[in-house]
This record gives sequence, C-alpha cells and structure tokens, in this order.
Amino acid sequence: MAKKPAKADFLALAKSRRTTYEFSEMPVREADIRKILEAGRWAPSVHNSQPWSFVVIKDKRTIGALLDNCYYGDFHTCPPLVVAVVANPPDHSLLKGKSGEFSMYPYLSISLPALNMAYEASSLGISSCIMLPFIGEANKLLKVKLGYEAVLAVGFGYERKGAFRKKRKRKSLAELIYKEYYGQRGRL
Amino acid sequence: MAKKPAKADFLALAKSRRTTYEFSEMPVREADIRKILEAGRWAPSVHNSQPWSFVVIKDKRTIGALLDNCYYGDFHTCPPLVVAVVANPPDHSLLKGKSGEFSMYPYLSISLPALNMAYEASSLGISSCIMLPFIGEANKLLKVKLGYEAVLAVGFGYERKGAFRKKRKRKSLAELIYKEYYGQRGRL
Repeated sequence: MAKKPAKADFLALAKSRRTTYEFSEMPVREADIRKILEAGRWAPSVHNSQPWSFVVIKDKRTIGALLDNCYYGDFHTCPPLVVAVVANPPDHSLLKGKSGEFSMYPYLSISLPALNMAYEASSLGISSCIMLPFIGEANKLLKVKLGYEAVLAVGFGYERKGAFRKKRKRKSLAELIYKEYYGQRGRL
Repeated sequence: MAKKPAKADFLALAKSRRTTYEFSEMPVREADIRKILEAGRWAPSVHNSQPWSFVVIKDKRTIGALLDNCYYGDFHTCPPLVVAVVANPPDHSLLKGKSGEFSMYPYLSISLPALNMAYEASSLGISSCIMLPFIGEANKLLKVKLGYEAVLAVGFGYERKGAFRKKRKRKSLAELIYKEYYGQRGRL
C-alpha cells in the first residue's frame, strides 16, 4: 500500500518562498543541507532522466566569484551556502522515435531540483535565492565538464535583519487562464 | 513584518508526488481547481517573467486527443482535468546587456508552475501526471498562437483502484553530489 499523500499546506509554502538578497553569516546546519539536497534529488524530470549534478559550495571566495557572475541583485551579501545545479547534455535516446523537440529537455528538468531545494529550505525556515549564472563563467569557475552547464545556482542561509526585499508580484489568474482552448477566456 | 515561513513537511510531499497513469471518473472540485491554478500562478520564473498561460481543459475529446499526442504511458485512462502550460516566446529584453544564453529561459521557467500545480494537487489528495505534449500537434489542437508552445500538460483527478504504478527511482545523493567543484567527490 502506498503512503498517503502528505497533507502539507503547499500553497502557503509556495507563497512564502521568496528571493533573499542579504544573508547573515549564520551557516546552514549539515542535517538541513542534507534535507535540502534530498528534496532536490526527488524532483521529477523528463522521462525521469535526472539530468543533473549538485555542486555544494561553502568556500567564500568561490561563492563570491560565482555571485559576481550571476543574474542577481546588484546589491547583495553572499549566502554561506550555494548549490550549483549542473545540467547534463541532452540525451538523444529520450527522443523515442519522435523527431523534433528534445534539446530543451535538460532545461525543462533542471529548474525542478532547484525549486525543490528552495521549498525544502523554506519549510525548514531557511532563506534562499535561485540565481542564473552566466554559464560560461560559472562553468570555468566550477571546473564543469565540457558539454555540461552550470545553469542554476541556489543560495541558502538566513536573511539578515533589515535586508532589502523586493515586493513579490504575479499576474492575476484572469490574465493567465484560458478555457478549453488557447485564447478563450471564461469565468473560472 | 513578513509572514513566517510555512512549516509544511515539504520533503514528505515531494516524495509522495508521483505520476498517476489511471484515473477514475471522479471530477476535481472547482474550489480545488482554483487552488491548483493559484499554486501555478505563484511559481517563480526567470526574472519573474511568468512566461506562461494555463489552458484549463475538461472536454473529454480534447483531453483524449491531447493525451494521444503526449509522451505518457501507452496504457492509461484519461484524467478528468488537464491544464496545458503554454510558454510565451523568449523575451529578448531579459538579456540585460549580456550575450548568449537566454533562448532557454522560457523552458527553465515553464516547468515550475507545472510542478507547483502537481504539489498543490498532492497536498489536496488529488493525483496528477506531468506530461510532455508533442508541441506541434498540441499547439494545433489547443489553437495556440504562433510562437507560443504547449510545452507541458498536467493531468489531475483521482487514481483508479488497482491502477498501474511505476516504481519511483532516483539516483543516490552520492552519485549526484560534488563538493566545491564539479567532479570533486567527498563525504556529505
């Protein structure tokens, strides 16, 4: 018999996760790092390909250099922990006889462990930021193998008191939703 | 003062979410559909671009035709509800003066609302399946605008008794993790 679905209030968690821009010096406990990585490991992926590795970075110089090569706030203090999410090259065997779209499969997959890690952090009371490294620079810095790509990096730590915050904004459901066909509006 | 982070047990939720292959006829309640869409709406995205629309599909013929044009189990019964996640074209303005990598931004973003919706479903006791439509066929079927792509579709409903299930498998953390640099193994 399968386990019952967890009755976590996911929507509250999803709404509470936010990008943190300034971290305190307080480190993340090893037991929590393990849970965060474990959540990343359980992310779904295209055909369960799991096309990823996680580089766990604590060295301050590496973190500083990596954050200088990310799309992130110009104004920030470094998190004490960064996990770089490295994508494997596209796997042609996943195509299963169909032509066309598959080169984006690693990109479709790779953001899922990053998000899982951020959610697990939130559920542990740990702050996070999901960042986009400049892939060329990040690959060089992290000695990433040719053909592989450091597509995302997630910082973890504890938000500094009085830290800069952006207001979280989302489009309304009315803007996002169509019914039955693309372009067909209708009440929900 | 910000809200406290939700103390949901996210890891248990992440582990409990699974692909459902056979659904009963029981429909998903309107209030739950709304929560599922709301969870999708709150997903993060590259530069908060939210490059997506959600097509809410209940028509059985459309669902059947869509599932015939998805990577999914050969053997399945249709879910009573499918939400197609349509990606907007890449937004050149997100490049912010940097050259190179940005055409994959919509793909990095688009899987996040799909996963959020699946998690919210799980937390409500609703089964789901995240599917990859053949984009050309799905675009035609859903009348998707040129340049936009029906990249993902998520089915929702209730698992049929005795339904086919795949064993969930993941690589071990030891296989996935490097320390400080790509390729450098070490104990966690």
